Amino acid sequence: MFGGVEAGGTKFVCGIGTGPDDLVTAHFPTTTPEQTLRSVNDFFSRHNGGPLQAIGIGSFGPVDLDPASRHFGHITSTPKQGWQYVDLAGLLRQALNLPVALDTDVNAALLGEARWGAAQGLQDAIYITIGTGVGGGAMVHGQVVHGLVHPEMGHLHLPHDWTADPFPGLCPFHGDCLEGLASGPAVQARWKQPAHTLPPDHPAWTIEARYLALAVMNLTVTLSPQRIIIGGGVMQQPHLFPLVRNEFARIMNSYVRHPHLSTGLDEYIQPPALGGRAGVLGSLVLAESALHQAEGSR
Amino acid sequence: MFGGVEAGGTKFVCGIGTGPDDLVTAHFPTTTPEQTLRSVNDFFSRHNGGPLQAIGIGSFGPVDLDPASRHFGHITSTPKQGWQYVDLAGLLRQALNLPVALDTDVNAALLGEARWGAAQGLQDAIYITIGTGVGGGAMVHGQVVHGLVHPEMGHLHLPHDWTADPFPGLCPFHGDCLEGLASGPAVQARWKQPAHTLPPDHPAWTIEARYLALAVMNLTVTLSPQRIIIGGGVMQQPHLFPLVRNEFARIMNSYVRHPHLSTGLDEYIQPPALGGRAGVLGSLVLAESALHQAEGSR
Repeated sequence: MFGGVEAGGTKFVCGIGTGPDDLVTAHFPTTTPEQTLRSVNDFFSRHNGGPLQAIGIGSFGPVDLDPASRHFGHITSTPKQGWQYVDLAGLLRQALNLPVALDTDVNAALLGEARWGAAQGLQDAIYITIGTGVGGGAMVHGQVVHGLVHPEMGHLHLPHDWTADPFPGLCPFHGDCLEGLASGPAVQARWKQPAHTLPPDHPAWTIEARYLALAVMNLTVTLSPQRIIIGGGVMQQPHLFPLVRNEFARIMNSYVRHPHLSTGLDEYIQPPALGGRAGVLGSLVLAESALHQAEGSR
Repeated sequence: MFGGVEAGGTKFVCGIGTGPDDLVTAHFPTTTPEQTLRSVNDFFSRHNGGPLQAIGIGSFGPVDLDPASRHFGHITSTPKQGWQYVDLAGLLRQALNLPVALDTDVNAALLGEARWGAAQGLQDAIYITIGTGVGGGAMVHGQVVHGLVHPEMGHLHLPHDWTADPFPGLCPFHGDCLEGLASGPAVQARWKQPAHTLPPDHPAWTIEARYLALAVMNLTVTLSPQRIIIGGGVMQQPHLFPLVRNEFARIMNSYVRHPHLSTGLDEYIQPPALGGRAGVLGSLVLAESALHQAEGSR
């Protein structure tokens, strides 16, 4: 039995279980680190369905994933008030006295989709989320990518046609990067109404699909994944997927040739099969790896 | 003793040896497949310094790297006249009766740099080449990335400021993708003179550095590599590296924080240590893997 935490900037989702058919969850608003982590600890401590073996955390970032770093397991330079350099993994490890593994929220979601969802059986896949922010994680050779820090796909720089879309973008670091142009808040700022209130035939979706398709193009030519899963609140519009697939095909223009990239686009670009539970389920996969690592080091 | 082939659209470079200090090379113009491969076979057959154990090939692409495909080891839909669907690996394997491994030219160059050059000891690195075309390869978790097909980083889509740079780009598939805007032929078409004849203070280099820095930005946020090596004919201008590093720092705007991305930029973005020999040396690494695979399957 594992515990999982999806640590988000708005809420923390905690889960206990072994998979999609055996999962109890609870969620708490993200307030101060002290208060939020107390709720998390209480949830896991109250659990009485047998002993937990390990905890996995998929967290908002940036997070330090370098085992050699003194900030390993910390959230680092987040703009989120009060959460800078919080030792998320360490505090939970101490409080619960269990092995803990931490990764980015998007890597956790990808691990969940790889185990039980839309990336099952794949070695090379990408998960991106389009919500309050835009983030992405990648799996290569069957393992999630960390590298120097970890991927931050939300900040891809893309062509921006200022005539078609005069909105300047709202990323505080880059203005019109992917997150600046295509996140939920960007859609809301551009059209002066929340994304979910815009009807399917609104021009907002053509523009949104354009940026997402450009991102899919760049991810495709950089990583050559077998599949790209797009989740997050903005993608709750089913009509958006066909728009993205068509625009991607137009941009790619048959340059990279593979059946997945022509007749197989419905599978190549798809929503998460686990929906909003991908993150917390993926945290269970992280917990499993924490247990294996703890067993290996004993 | 291994044999390596860097198969380019203009010339084939063949080498025999064990590393940078023990390498004999020869090169042949790329004419028809029959004539070119005859030259390659003659070179390896004439060799009399002890038996060759295996051959590695780093090839221009696209190439089919999927062992399950009927075109495995072939060059596929290249625009290069006469070379479509040539079974490069199979023909050399037959002619020389040796184990043969094939990968992209840029993956081979990256393998060479990882063994003997600027990516030694790294697990996550990228090699891009800016020449007649633009291509790139990546190493993740210490292994080169193939994925669905293989990376084609030359076709990244980047912001294009039409006021600062009205040149429309010359990629036949995408117009103003990275290759369309920043390859050697693109520089030549934009300024009506070859890149190597443009003086260091020519505005061409500011524009070139801008596109290369945007590419480095996108590769950084997608793969989070430990290092990005930039080779190829256009990079034979040493003044271009500081321009790219400065522009990258300006674009990144301290969003992803790591010493390598601030004070360490001279190392983060650097030329290949093996220069023009990275490809043929990397082919020796491929040859070694071909031998191991052949031994493993016996």
